[in-house]
Amino acid sequence: MSHLIIVGGSDAGISAALRARELDSSIQVTMIVEDAFPNYSICGLPFYLSGEVPDYRQLAHRTREEINGAGIDLLLNHTAQAIDPEAHSVTVKDSAERVQRIFYDRLILATGARSRRPHIGGLNLLGVFFLHTMENSFQMQHYLSTHSVHSALIVGGGYIGLEMADALTRRGLTVTLVEHGASVLKTIDPSLGTLVQAELEQHGVVVHTNIGVQQIVAGQEHLCISGAGGFTASADVVLVAVGVEPRTDLAQAIGAELGMQGAIRVSRAMETSVPDVLAAGDCVETWHHLLRQPMYLPLGTTAHKQGRIAGATAIGKPALFAGTLGTQVVKVFDQVVARTGLREHEAKAAGFDPLTVEGRYFDHKVYYPGAQPVCMSLTGDRRTGRLLGAQMVGPVQTEVAKRIDVIAMALFHEMTVEALSDLDLSYTPPLGSPWDPVQMCAQAWTHRA
Amino acid sequence: MSHLIIVGGSDAGISAALRARELDSSIQVTMIVEDAFPNYSICGLPFYLSGEVPDYRQLAHRTREEINGAGIDLLLNHTAQAIDPEAHSVTVKDSAERVQRIFYDRLILATGARSRRPHIGGLNLLGVFFLHTMENSFQMQHYLSTHSVHSALIVGGGYIGLEMADALTRRGLTVTLVEHGASVLKTIDPSLGTLVQAELEQHGVVVHTNIGVQQIVAGQEHLCISGAGGFTASADVVLVAVGVEPRTDLAQAIGAELGMQGAIRVSRAMETSVPDVLAAGDCVETWHHLLRQPMYLPLGTTAHKQGRIAGATAIGKPALFAGTLGTQVVKVFDQVVARTGLREHEAKAAGFDPLTVEGRYFDHKVYYPGAQPVCMSLTGDRRTGRLLGAQMVGPVQTEVAKRIDVIAMALFHEMTVEALSDLDLSYTPPLGSPWDPVQMCAQAWTHRA
Repeated sequence: MSHLIIVGGSDAGISAALRARELDSSIQVTMIVEDAFPNYSICGLPFYLSGEVPDYRQLAHRTREEINGAGIDLLLNHTAQAIDPEAHSVTVKDSAERVQRIFYDRLILATGARSRRPHIGGLNLLGVFFLHTMENSFQMQHYLSTHSVHSALIVGGGYIGLEMADALTRRGLTVTLVEHGASVLKTIDPSLGTLVQAELEQHGVVVHTNIGVQQIVAGQEHLCISGAGGFTASADVVLVAVGVEPRTDLAQAIGAELGMQGAIRVSRAMETSVPDVLAAGDCVETWHHLLRQPMYLPLGTTAHKQGRIAGATAIGKPALFAGTLGTQVVKVFDQVVARTGLREHEAKAAGFDPLTVEGRYFDHKVYYPGAQPVCMSLTGDRRTGRLLGAQMVGPVQTEVAKRIDVIAMALFHEMTVEALSDLDLSYTPPLGSPWDPVQMCAQAWTHRA
Repeated sequence: MSHLIIVGGSDAGISAALRARELDSSIQVTMIVEDAFPNYSICGLPFYLSGEVPDYRQLAHRTREEINGAGIDLLLNHTAQAIDPEAHSVTVKDSAERVQRIFYDRLILATGARSRRPHIGGLNLLGVFFLHTMENSFQMQHYLSTHSVHSALIVGGGYIGLEMADALTRRGLTVTLVEHGASVLKTIDPSLGTLVQAELEQHGVVVHTNIGVQQIVAGQEHLCISGAGGFTASADVVLVAVGVEPRTDLAQAIGAELGMQGAIRVSRAMETSVPDVLAAGDCVETWHHLLRQPMYLPLGTTAHKQGRIAGATAIGKPALFAGTLGTQVVKVFDQVVARTGLREHEAKAAGFDPLTVEGRYFDHKVYYPGAQPVCMSLTGDRRTGRLLGAQMVGPVQTEVAKRIDVIAMALFHEMTVEALSDLDLSYTPPLGSPWDPVQMCAQAWTHRA
């Protein structure tokens, strides 16, 4: 093993490259990046468009110089066109259309995902945007800066939809959010989704649920949006944020096996079915630590971890991806929404006998100024008492993002709900209670089960 | 088992009572409380004295009515004078000096701790205070409200000393803090203690370290304090906060075995050496989860847990105390200091081969406004790679208290430092990084080890 080629320069690709070089500095690493923005924080795009991050260059996790300094050769603005797995070569084309063939000992596909394009008419109209790449964000930024834009309609109430509702409101736009499902943020229970919707509405966002958008038409002054059940609305711009799908063209062309939702099937060491070809990040299936099976769950944290594993495996020091727990967090205006593990219906589908208990607990002793409630739900298995998952919604100051991490840790170690009360968690009146909310909810669950 | 008597109505006592009644509502529970303040938050006293908690009654975790409503009989202002373990009786005296004898099937001693009185002359002078009981806080509150008090000197740079330096500064006093050791907060490494000292000084607290106070004398206008090496200072009030010692008079009188620092020796089910007598909280030894041996570490969180175990064991449903990890957190002005597990010298003494790595990591992606550094140190065992402990100092917004909980969870499960990178922790740019600071520090440790 002497030459590692990585296709893709985002989270998974860079993590793989860094890990390979960290473990074996004799390895030559070449990274093929289709744009000029390796190692940019895609998760940061909403904050660039909100104006909170004034210069897009701040979004770089590392500069090109730092990447080069780590011993990684960058081929920027190069597209990987084809792979010859027999010859162990990749054919790349640069922006001047020059084509070359480069040879690998091992190859890592970190080709990521692309925005899903739903069946809505008018997606190619001027003023209709997707948001997944740096180029997407430049287009939208340019349009917002050069046109008289006062209103936006967002299709999709998932993480990006909510962050962009926040971002565009902050930018001064009037925002309408249209969600196909019965509540925003389908990854949490509707009872908590309602709290998120209230937070959006409190900041002026008009939220429509149970509406499938069908058509966008360019009117004289606005874009006109219509949907099921006679829904109509108008806006200066439309953002379509209905999720992503894995980019697997290269993998498919070499016959790599695909799995869940068309993502590349990989072993827990991040090997594809093609010899010497590994894959990681948003283009692959993700092993679920609790379900003990793969699913498609593209997330930056996971991409980092998978990339790190792929880098190690590629240089002959195989590691195993421990799996996702489905931990996710998003900040929407002043509220933070976090979840990890399985929700009731997911647990039931997996053969558990789930019980979910909801509660409302102050983040710290109520006598100390500023105590605010955390709304949380906790799911456990009635048969075994095993903890299965939790969700929380609370103001930023309630440290919900880190409290979900305690649950994630407990899930990782397959703890029972009851055992949460054994944990020696930190306490001081301004920041907690002798029993953390997580433990109070666990005790309520045990009492009910 | 039908009558459970509990001596002491603070954290351990109430937790025991509630747990016993929760598990068996047929149990009669009588709680002997020497003052009129059962279930008050002693940890909240600094915030009462700072003025942040305007009414001391807010410090009650539960009202008397709630305690009675849970089926617990309160004997307030009653002192347990003697126990007859043969007869299974407790002799109690009320405030009118009436004595009665009550019989138990099981007895739980939750007598707590008292302030340690160091060898300093003048501790009984007017204007010299300790702070451990409600009565202590009333005395100090009354004095501060009725005298012209402009300055305070605090003896002791531990948790209470630091919280009171913050509290009295907030109240408008000029505060001097005198610490016997080389740095404040001896429970963390001096390199981090220095940061805490800087925070104190930035808020106007004058800090003296390496000074043993020897004498307090009443001067004409002030109290005059003198110490080793010619140290002199003056102040309107002095607070002595040099720790606590277990209250074990009743236990000793019945021949209960004592252990570390004179605390009552208990099994992990919270049984003393005397049949049918259990004990919990600040009066007992605490099992250390990592060291697998008892130590004296009186903390509110531990008292709650031990009380809960004692309540279960007392009614014949024995449970085992999982042990402390030494998790502690304190807020000092705008900084939070947290620790868990073993420090380097503790680990060495326990036979480990510790390596400690220090690092400075932003609490969230630096491109998102408001990112602030967390200073942390992480200790692991070189031989086995096992995680042994961590310490963190960071501004309140950096969620240090909950990040230490992730380490505490990892310690509880005896994880290696390396395995921290496997954890699916939450991430969103305003609140974290794809690798949490905890994981970044773990990776730095692994790289060094």
